[in-house]
Amino acid sequence: MAQLNSHYLKLKAGYLFPEVNRRVKAFLEANPEAAGRLIRCGIGDVTEPLPAGARKAMHQAIDELGDRKSFRGYGPEQGYDFLRQAIAENDYRSRRLEIDDDEVFISDGSKCDCANVLDIFGDANRIAVMDPVYPVYVDTNVMAGHTGPADEKGIYPGLLYLPCTPENGFMPEIPNQRVDLIYLCSPNNPTGATATRKRLNEWVRFALEHEAVILYDAAYEAYIAEPDIPHSIYEIDGARGCAIEFRSFSKNGGFTGVRCAFTVVPKELECRSSNGDKRSLHPLWNRRFSTKFNGVSYVTQRGAQALYSEEGKSQVAALVAHYMGNAKILRAAVMSSGLAVYGGINAPYIWVRGPEQLTSWEIFDRILNEASIVITPGSGFGAGGEGYFRISAFNSRENAEMAAQRFASLNW
Amino acid sequence: MAQLNSHYLKLKAGYLFPEVNRRVKAFLEANPEAAGRLIRCGIGDVTEPLPAGARKAMHQAIDELGDRKSFRGYGPEQGYDFLRQAIAENDYRSRRLEIDDDEVFISDGSKCDCANVLDIFGDANRIAVMDPVYPVYVDTNVMAGHTGPADEKGIYPGLLYLPCTPENGFMPEIPNQRVDLIYLCSPNNPTGATATRKRLNEWVRFALEHEAVILYDAAYEAYIAEPDIPHSIYEIDGARGCAIEFRSFSKNGGFTGVRCAFTVVPKELECRSSNGDKRSLHPLWNRRFSTKFNGVSYVTQRGAQALYSEEGKSQVAALVAHYMGNAKILRAAVMSSGLAVYGGINAPYIWVRGPEQLTSWEIFDRILNEASIVITPGSGFGAGGEGYFRISAFNSRENAEMAAQRFASLNW
Repeated sequence: MAQLNSHYLKLKAGYLFPEVNRRVKAFLEANPEAAGRLIRCGIGDVTEPLPAGARKAMHQAIDELGDRKSFRGYGPEQGYDFLRQAIAENDYRSRRLEIDDDEVFISDGSKCDCANVLDIFGDANRIAVMDPVYPVYVDTNVMAGHTGPADEKGIYPGLLYLPCTPENGFMPEIPNQRVDLIYLCSPNNPTGATATRKRLNEWVRFALEHEAVILYDAAYEAYIAEPDIPHSIYEIDGARGCAIEFRSFSKNGGFTGVRCAFTVVPKELECRSSNGDKRSLHPLWNRRFSTKFNGVSYVTQRGAQALYSEEGKSQVAALVAHYMGNAKILRAAVMSSGLAVYGGINAPYIWVRGPEQLTSWEIFDRILNEASIVITPGSGFGAGGEGYFRISAFNSRENAEMAAQRFASLNW
Repeated sequence: MAQLNSHYLKLKAGYLFPEVNRRVKAFLEANPEAAGRLIRCGIGDVTEPLPAGARKAMHQAIDELGDRKSFRGYGPEQGYDFLRQAIAENDYRSRRLEIDDDEVFISDGSKCDCANVLDIFGDANRIAVMDPVYPVYVDTNVMAGHTGPADEKGIYPGLLYLPCTPENGFMPEIPNQRVDLIYLCSPNNPTGATATRKRLNEWVRFALEHEAVILYDAAYEAYIAEPDIPHSIYEIDGARGCAIEFRSFSKNGGFTGVRCAFTVVPKELECRSSNGDKRSLHPLWNRRFSTKFNGVSYVTQRGAQALYSEEGKSQVAALVAHYMGNAKILRAAVMSSGLAVYGGINAPYIWVRGPEQLTSWEIFDRILNEASIVITPGSGFGAGGEGYFRISAFNSRENAEMAAQRFASLNW
């Protein structure tokens, strides 16, 4: 009699975005004339064309596959050397961070990586997440059986939620209890906050002292504009001994539909095995790739490599500048309406505190009905997001300007 | 103190192909003049160009991504409707098998699917695998903690190994003990055997009676040539209630480097939850895709769709005919050398029983040294493969013919 994984049954029914879509659909059915003016500032998906350099490289890769002399079948599961090297060189070594090519693992997305990384850890770890937080960290731990069933607020016993508030700059303080795995996301989704060098240093010291591992999600790294914000956790002394870093081409190269990302797992990062030995995690992650994955499309990997050419770098910079131009306009508009605004400076997300008396979903409905704008309710990112909402700056300039006008004129 | 997943430490050090590569490298270092005549009939990777129809569709998809009006970011995690529908229609409904579009889940590979499917099952299931077998089924169960450490023959306690021998046509009989999950692979890797309708019917009856689930790997379905061999397990009455099917574009469309595959999970397939309720698996697999995956590249999905056009179908048929032409030549040659030969009729793999006194690795070394041909030792697929070797028919015709000549003249 086959048994299913009953931990899945603990998951709250609706992932955030299906519920958003349901409400938008109902709104448009009731207000068909609003369809033309609806502006989507909800889901964090890019809108601008794939950079020309990436497209050119991908076309060329397809042509190579059309000739048996240059045909490529299975590639290395961990990614082609040409891409691992381009990443290690451009994102790390050129910034004086020692990362070897074979410490970089190419994948088809940071969501997959954040989920799959749990495979190489044991089940007895005490896990900490920021609150509010990207729901994938929480849900994958629920699926893996690391929690009890959720309470009515959606809080899962077994996880340690680290409150992120205006007071701590939305970057959590060190906890005064045992933690083994810590998810940190900077620049943050959803709050747009970034970890300061000082705060990151405290976390690295904590992790080294307690033999904890930091899962550092830097998928929005390209959006860091202020000079003193760390771009990588490996800028902090000792981080090679306690941190895995996650990066993605989704938001810098516009690869959300093309699918490419990577993890960095330094070779000296160690954990305890069940008999108490210290063992390196690198061979486990490597083995996971060999056994449960077959590499990213050759065409995609050539596209990602092209983002590191001079042409590619300037195209990425232009894309980032475009979205951050939107963020600036939206941020100013929402501030002018009198609400407290966070993020939007080193991240394409603007995080807004709504009026005291309204829940996130009430705010969602009001903005949808009064301004025909779709935002993301903060409570969708956890109990700590209640009362907030997230505005995505991924849009055309025209839409961003129109949305800004409407946000500015909302009467809270 | 973070703990790693100690089950990984039970895995045997070398995955099969790294050891093959090590021996080939040593051989070439000792015999540099052999480099030019080496023929690889080892790993089952395609060699011929990607079909023109797929390339055309992929070029077009890249151009679409270059224009903001036709740009696509995140797609549905489960795959685009255009591809789910093409599959359900062409592979199933046109053959009178009732499969809904949303029972098809698009992924980046059957290896990933076979590995990831364990996520939705509980840990108390009794698991059966064919022996010899595609190593991924075994290794992923080891990683998930479903076994003890391997013995010296590489057998993991906790798994039920179903012997596949010439006597049962390399397709296992029904066991006389409890089994909850059964991996069946037909056409088989490595033996090239196919399940008859009668044998498959016995398995479906067994699974229905005992509430077991069959994980049916049909990645080589396109190679079935004989008229009465089932192409899908859903050709068997009742299979919708007990089976998940795995298919791939790797070996029919030459997609090993492009990465696309799919699973079929019928909605009436149910398992028990921990409190004994019966629950459908479909929403769990759907949820896994939503939470731990972000869909296959849009470019890749358009390429896969093109394999279902009239042009694409004839290009796939030509590729399959090419490889099966190789198989025929290789099969005849090895038979003429006096060895017992299996497979190679409905599958691109030829499975050969070596001389009594030799182990698979001894055979490997002898063929490498005497014929400069790389094969895959049967023992790499499990204890049941000892004494056998596998010849892959994925090659150019020229190489297949040259390899055939050398196989024929080997003096066993």
